[in-house]
Amino acid sequence: MTKAIVIGGSRGIGKSISESLQEIGCEVLATSRKEIDTSNIESVKKFSEHQGNTDILVLNTGGPPAKEFFSITEEEWQKYHNQLFLGFCLILKNIKINEGGYIFLISSSVIKEPNPKLIISSAYRLAFSSVLKILSKDFAKKNISCINIAPGPINTQRTKELVENVDEYTQSLPMGRLGEPKEIGNFVKSIVQNKVKYLSGVVINFDGSNSNHIF
Amino acid sequence: MTKAIVIGGSRGIGKSISESLQEIGCEVLATSRKEIDTSNIESVKKFSEHQGNTDILVLNTGGPPAKEFFSITEEEWQKYHNQLFLGFCLILKNIKINEGGYIFLISSSVIKEPNPKLIISSAYRLAFSSVLKILSKDFAKKNISCINIAPGPINTQRTKELVENVDEYTQSLPMGRLGEPKEIGNFVKSIVQNKVKYLSGVVINFDGSNSNHIF
Amino acid sequence: MTKAIVIGGSRGIGKSISESLQEIGCEVLATSRKEIDTSNIESVKKFSEHQGNTDILVLNTGGPPAKEFFSITEEEWQKYHNQLFLGFCLILKNIKINEGGYIFLISSSVIKEPNPKLIISSAYRLAFSSVLKILSKDFAKKNISCINIAPGPINTQRTKELVENVDEYTQSLPMGRLGEPKEIGNFVKSIVQNKVKYLSGVVINFDGSNSNHIF
Amino acid sequence: MTKAIVIGGSRGIGKSISESLQEIGCEVLATSRKEIDTSNIESVKKFSEHQGNTDILVLNTGGPPAKEFFSITEEEWQKYHNQLFLGFCLILKNIKINEGGYIFLISSSVIKEPNPKLIISSAYRLAFSSVLKILSKDFAKKNISCINIAPGPINTQRTKELVENVDEYTQSLPMGRLGEPKEIGNFVKSIVQNKVKYLSGVVINFDGSNSNHIF
Repeated sequence: MTKAIVIGGSRGIGKSISESLQEIGCEVLATSRKEIDTSNIESVKKFSEHQGNTDILVLNTGGPPAKEFFSITEEEWQKYHNQLFLGFCLILKNIKINEGGYIFLISSSVIKEPNPKLIISSAYRLAFSSVLKILSKDFAKKNISCINIAPGPINTQRTKELVENVDEYTQSLPMGRLGEPKEIGNFVKSIVQNKVKYLSGVVINFDGSNSNHIF
Repeated sequence: MTKAIVIGGSRGIGKSISESLQEIGCEVLATSRKEIDTSNIESVKKFSEHQGNTDILVLNTGGPPAKEFFSITEEEWQKYHNQLFLGFCLILKNIKINEGGYIFLISSSVIKEPNPKLIISSAYRLAFSSVLKILSKDFAKKNISCINIAPGPINTQRTKELVENVDEYTQSLPMGRLGEPKEIGNFVKSIVQNKVKYLSGVVINFDGSNSNHIF
Repeated sequence: MTKAIVIGGSRGIGKSISESLQEIGCEVLATSRKEIDTSNIESVKKFSEHQGNTDILVLNTGGPPAKEFFSITEEEWQKYHNQLFLGFCLILKNIKINEGGYIFLISSSVIKEPNPKLIISSAYRLAFSSVLKILSKDFAKKNISCINIAPGPINTQRTKELVENVDEYTQSLPMGRLGEPKEIGNFVKSIVQNKVKYLSGVVINFDGSNSNHIF
Repeated sequence: MTKAIVIGGSRGIGKSISESLQEIGCEVLATSRKEIDTSNIESVKKFSEHQGNTDILVLNTGGPPAKEFFSITEEEWQKYHNQLFLGFCLILKNIKINEGGYIFLISSSVIKEPNPKLIISSAYRLAFSSVLKILSKDFAKKNISCINIAPGPINTQRTKELVENVDEYTQSLPMGRLGEPKEIGNFVKSIVQNKVKYLSGVVINFDGSNSNHIF
């Protein structure tokens, strides 16, 4: 039985990944804020110290509300530093991934094309992407694949909150639609199901041809 | 019945992709140099003008022998310009991809980290990656996903020819092994099988954590 | 006396670089199409075989007219392959750069963010950027610095031809203006003047904060 | 009189930049840890709230000692989050840059090629690079250029501490030598001196052809 822990697994993309992994027989622990609040370091420590090993770890968390640089307070930087960066570091430090396992990070397209409204996410999600890239080389020795999925515009509650006119926005996208959480779920499932292991240390844009940079 | 054309499908990575697509019931035309020689523009035109539509197109071709810049002749630049760039452009111009289809490009990790021994590949495979990126936005309108897979060190005949001491090289890799062509085959299969469509306009390193750049 | 060859030095950015280098006492050969036509391989060979050494080489050339992928002919690919890629390769193969010298490539922002209207430029300028990156490591041994400047929207005749409404476009730019050719000239001058040598093997966006990718 | 504030201006690269700016007549405030300790938020606030405007701001600071991921404590993450990220954010929030000015960030080549020994630097310097990229678009409206210089191996005390065998390392570099702090000083000077303004929102590798990624 393959065990999976999906942080932020109770809704949106995390929920879809949880369901997709269940479809192929994984035993999934899909956490909500009740089990672990990644913005609270004590909560993170308590949670991660009580987990045993896992085969699959999905690092996923919501982002802060849209906020412009000059209005961000010191406390907000600290809070989201915990939520988007330090919490994940502590989880990786404390939860043991079994040999042959997977670590999936659900980051965001803003790690490559930083967004002025999402400056906190842009910065800290990118910082953690650097950490995962470094660690991917060590994990590779234990045949653990580290895969950073960077979603673009996905059909979640959050997108509806961030975008003013969703219909107009949707029509401006190359595929004329938002991505569905289920597509990311299916993608994660397909990798695990087919034992794709050499895909590691990689950032994968998942944005329906929306980005403009060649990479 | 899903139809697939796999250029360079008679050996190595192309062969593995062909087999993987057959496993899920695709009707695969796996070409060898007999059907189409991508270094020969006339051969490319003849082949691509006689194909009808396809659902899946895999653009894959071998590279030139290792050669240092100052020893490359004008004729060699021209030949491999055909093989690695212009031939693929003409194929895309002439073969119609059905709505909801896929284009996979098998490029190379040298598009991001150019290799002095593989300067011809580094340059022309990158040039074609730019073309595919641009076209991915148009293809997106027809729900056709364009996916550029950039393999690192894979266990093929070519790698054995290029690397002096394969064992030593292998041990220096993060996973302690080369990637298997079958892993790329499985990856392509898994995307088609699970109808992952929003993954498009993307370059995916497939190198077992071997690259050093954050992206 | 420092000698400089500026390809495409009779107008636009090339002309500004030529003038800037003259200001600091360089002996500049600023070529027009009379001296060398980079789209014509015979012309390139004739020119480059008759040059002796140089201290500074500026590789600069105009681009093709805007054209959409499906309307580009085989002959056009071949022509601009010569102009934007092969011609520069042959120049580098034939003209000797003196120790402690500089090679400047004037590429374009489309090497990072490929442009559907400028697909030929996007592809071939990027291909040549790969070649220069590779060669920069060899040239480094002779203390020759290779600097790839990738201009964004610059106030040249070409920009006026490519952009429909220049005023509107200009106002949409972060600095509210196009870059001036003289600014690139000054930048090249400043590097030579201050003997900045460790700046090498680098691509430098020169676009007034216009690009969106973090790098 | 052009005013410049150089954070970390008392030694290494910061000192060289300070001296170079003085050579062209700038009034330079080169801070040491006495004036401002970027790892201490109170110190940062006290310093930055007492500065008036400046024309040039150089954001520069030393990095943490080399440390492997699993040995980094929560307190160390917090401390260097202050030093390499939050401190700089607060400086930018509090010190006003005059129209037509410059912001230089001295980051590191590890922002592109993260280094396992320098994981803290890799992550937080990259995070701040994202912030500066975003802000560069706003600053552009006031003709303020934001330039992120990412030095590779430079001849500083720090490099001597980090590298085991400096001679061996030096010989392995493309130019056969480390970069000199003075070269970065000269580069910064040359940009200011020649009023190069359209160079903005850019990350510039300064590494003597040492990096391997095409960008």
